[in-house]
Amino acid sequence: MSNLSGIAASNGIAIAKVYKLAVPDLTFEKTKVDNPEQEIARLQDALEISKKELEKIKENAKKTLGDEHAEIFSAHLLVLSDPEMINPIQDKIKSENTNAEAALKETADMFISMFEGMDNEYMRERAADIKDVTKRVMAHLLKVNFPDPALIDEEVVVVAEDLTPSDTAQLNKQFVKGFTTNIGGRTSHSAIMARSLEIPAVVGTKTITSEAKENDMVIVDGIDGEVILNPSDAVIAQYEKKQADFEEQKKEWAKLKNEPTKSTDGQFVELVANIGTPEDVKGVIDNGGEGVGLYRTEFLYMGKSELPTEEEQFEAYKSVLEQLGDHPVVVRTLDIGGDKELSYLKLPEEMNPFLGFRAIRLCLERDDIFRTQLRALLRASVYGNLKIMFPMIATLDEFRQAKAILLEEKDKLVSEGSKVSDDIEIGIMVEIPSTAVIARQFAKEVDFFSIGTNDLIQYTMAADRMNERVSYLYQPYHPAILNLVNNVIEAAHAEGKWAGMCGEMAGDSIAIPILLGLGLDEFSMSATSILPARTQISKLSKAEMASFKDQLLSMSTADEVEAFVREKTNQ
Amino acid sequence: MSNLSGIAASNGIAIAKVYKLAVPDLTFEKTKVDNPEQEIARLQDALEISKKELEKIKENAKKTLGDEHAEIFSAHLLVLSDPEMINPIQDKIKSENTNAEAALKETADMFISMFEGMDNEYMRERAADIKDVTKRVMAHLLKVNFPDPALIDEEVVVVAEDLTPSDTAQLNKQFVKGFTTNIGGRTSHSAIMARSLEIPAVVGTKTITSEAKENDMVIVDGIDGEVILNPSDAVIAQYEKKQADFEEQKKEWAKLKNEPTKSTDGQFVELVANIGTPEDVKGVIDNGGEGVGLYRTEFLYMGKSELPTEEEQFEAYKSVLEQLGDHPVVVRTLDIGGDKELSYLKLPEEMNPFLGFRAIRLCLERDDIFRTQLRALLRASVYGNLKIMFPMIATLDEFRQAKAILLEEKDKLVSEGSKVSDDIEIGIMVEIPSTAVIARQFAKEVDFFSIGTNDLIQYTMAADRMNERVSYLYQPYHPAILNLVNNVIEAAHAEGKWAGMCGEMAGDSIAIPILLGLGLDEFSMSATSILPARTQISKLSKAEMASFKDQLLSMSTADEVEAFVREKTNQ
Repeated sequence: MSNLSGIAASNGIAIAKVYKLAVPDLTFEKTKVDNPEQEIARLQDALEISKKELEKIKENAKKTLGDEHAEIFSAHLLVLSDPEMINPIQDKIKSENTNAEAALKETADMFISMFEGMDNEYMRERAADIKDVTKRVMAHLLKVNFPDPALIDEEVVVVAEDLTPSDTAQLNKQFVKGFTTNIGGRTSHSAIMARSLEIPAVVGTKTITSEAKENDMVIVDGIDGEVILNPSDAVIAQYEKKQADFEEQKKEWAKLKNEPTKSTDGQFVELVANIGTPEDVKGVIDNGGEGVGLYRTEFLYMGKSELPTEEEQFEAYKSVLEQLGDHPVVVRTLDIGGDKELSYLKLPEEMNPFLGFRAIRLCLERDDIFRTQLRALLRASVYGNLKIMFPMIATLDEFRQAKAILLEEKDKLVSEGSKVSDDIEIGIMVEIPSTAVIARQFAKEVDFFSIGTNDLIQYTMAADRMNERVSYLYQPYHPAILNLVNNVIEAAHAEGKWAGMCGEMAGDSIAIPILLGLGLDEFSMSATSILPARTQISKLSKAEMASFKDQLLSMSTADEVEAFVREKTNQ
Repeated sequence: MSNLSGIAASNGIAIAKVYKLAVPDLTFEKTKVDNPEQEIARLQDALEISKKELEKIKENAKKTLGDEHAEIFSAHLLVLSDPEMINPIQDKIKSENTNAEAALKETADMFISMFEGMDNEYMRERAADIKDVTKRVMAHLLKVNFPDPALIDEEVVVVAEDLTPSDTAQLNKQFVKGFTTNIGGRTSHSAIMARSLEIPAVVGTKTITSEAKENDMVIVDGIDGEVILNPSDAVIAQYEKKQADFEEQKKEWAKLKNEPTKSTDGQFVELVANIGTPEDVKGVIDNGGEGVGLYRTEFLYMGKSELPTEEEQFEAYKSVLEQLGDHPVVVRTLDIGGDKELSYLKLPEEMNPFLGFRAIRLCLERDDIFRTQLRALLRASVYGNLKIMFPMIATLDEFRQAKAILLEEKDKLVSEGSKVSDDIEIGIMVEIPSTAVIARQFAKEVDFFSIGTNDLIQYTMAADRMNERVSYLYQPYHPAILNLVNNVIEAAHAEGKWAGMCGEMAGDSIAIPILLGLGLDEFSMSATSILPARTQISKLSKAEMASFKDQLLSMSTADEVEAFVREKTNQ
């Protein structure tokens, strides 16, 4: 028996035998060829087969994972059709009389090392895409089998160095009980997909592929991030108990699916979900969400070669609104720039993209893009309960300008004869410290606040949350964060407005009691966190939590806050 | 007569004739040579002459501008001795049998385009260094005259595309009455040097070199950033009046040189200076500074190939302390990383360096570097009135750790028999929003606060102040900034501590009345701003300014604040 620790990437316990996802042998010899045209034809064949496979995988992913996750395969397909990638391979075959394998490998490696060397998350993802796609094409050139997780037909835990998006999209939940990898983190593609599929997963174990042998028994504990190889019977029994408890807990959670969210002293709050695409709404409803607190509209703009049209956007917004009926849907207008780039926008490189030209800053300058989105939203507003919020607002001037543009477009639509709802609330994301500090001034003009803690924390602490060397400063429980959150909530209530939160903090079990006590009205989180959060709140007294407020706000460190909450709420 | 607008880079009015700093013709033909050894010898000669000249310029710069500014020439001399630069030139001569001029140009261009392409301020400065140095070497290879501003012997205004650091260092204040350039900004090397030399300057006029002819009459208005070519007699008379007024004003300022800083209602504040090197102390005393509010210690670490020793640092700190006698000297411990890199430290590239691994974050991990600096400071403490502050403090834990290390080193020194002052105040820079928000908690543990507005503003607004596309969000008068500053001052006073400010805001004529009213105790600014600030404060009532506090703190925008202050203080 041996234990490995990793990163808990997806909740639950899996107990099954090891299935090693074999990496095929893709070695080859570089050779001189007499007939380069023949090599180019071989390359074309391999490209065509790969394209067909990817199209199938994409269709399959759309069904099982939704459009958002399927977009990655559009990106892969683009690589295979990109003349900037394909022409250099063909040129190399012709000019160097080399075999297709060598030309493919050398060209791909050149692009991969170029993109990996760039100090830019987006470009590094492109490098990963090219790697994934190149392996598939190479396998077809070499006529070796490419791993096909779709063929698994008995209960297993998949063990791999890493899972590519195409691997994950092919996992059949019926047989694949869990997976574990050497590399990856909580926000890697494979981890996100595991949570969507609700398959237990532990990533980042570093050595699982070398320690596990085919058919070994293995336990994947996705709750605590543990992997146990060849467990004793006693340990298996222990984990079967843990698995059963987890299933019990899920059942307990499920009981509250159609209930409102109520504390022991009868106070209600709203638990809503963060979504990225219309396909995500099903998960919101299945998990008992009371609406959408953050509809990120960026996916409409990504994995494309041009801006989405007003019509495309209208259809997406309408679909989300219709599916949710009377439930509120808070749509955030476009938040690109920073780490989220669009190839067709060609934004300038910035030294500090997180402090740069993004979100509302970009939308106010490129108001053509902004107006198209607003028109689509306004036209969709009659199909449900729409609320609109602007991201990255740092000054009241920005809010006033954005709102003025929105009202202009509304007037235009009305005079063109379109129907537009008259009850659209207009609010802002509070994710920049300046706005949290003068929330009182903002509260007079906005209809609501939604606190975006992911950014608010990184700006308040001056620490890039993606930078490992300073990520210890990403402290949601830091008393400064609690004071800013409190300031926003108090400001909203003083003007009769509501305050929500749509950062990860809203679904965190230490933060929830604090936020309940501070009077937060709306908690927006990933859909799968809603039922656990509702269960937690159903056991908390809001008045008791509120009684800790002054004490919490005057604490000195995040550790002090956490220890206090753990003690008071038995966590 | 024609007018050009530019950037006011250094105060004052200059009226004199144009002296165009000629750029020598450095064109050459690339040729094949029979005797590459002879070319290498020519190259060596040109390098040697250039080195000797640069050493002279460096010595001269030390005398007129101080060590800090002279360091740039150490960097230039390093380029001329760097085998990674020189060997490729020699190799090129030998392997391509080419002339020294072509080998020099091609090699330098390669390095320049490489460094310019990097998304890194420090590397782009290295590109500028190589450009400057290469021109000098090329001139010697071609035996053409390199511009020698030291030879100017009549009253002129120097007109140039740009001034290199070596040009500026050679300007003789007796004859060079002012200068104006096509390019550059307020923080470019030439602008900073102009302020040190107190020569009026307007930079960034875009077209002055093409519009001005040798011996044209020209007015440089460094107060309002205007350049007037061939002015009429009436205009000359008008500017002579403005020049006289400015001299009058300087005299008025000078009257307060040895006076304390007192408002009309008899309240005192402290006006101190920001410095970078011991040589800057003279300017502080000449400008009536009451001490040093920010001694940036980075210059000790820059333009070097290794870390400064404890002894080197001790000598620098001792010199500053001794020169200032009983006056306070607030030393900021090392603030590197972010935009300030050191070649010998090899810090990892970061996606958002301003939100990255820098200052105290780095010092707590690399405590060997930190301890060396603290030991040097502690040993120097007996020579004056030393206060120590830590930069980029985001959590109380960081402050506690840094203070514990300081006290450990103090104990060690004392047990080794060294003398250490027992009255060293230990404070922090308040430049991260989290610290400003919970200043109340910090005030119980620190001896003082110094608000670093340059960083505080950029983090609070989430806008990189160096990024032109978002620099409009760098708003010192934003009500959120005023609220944070007020919070820090109130927190300090509640615990009987003092609060200072060492960002540019402390010397700003709109901010000064506000800060006086908020109760700021210490204003630290560039030395040349001290007398104007003292004059301004001598005409303000602190009680009146304090009466505006609630009104200012509840305003909605920076524009509103500015308009209000202008009206109340007749600006």
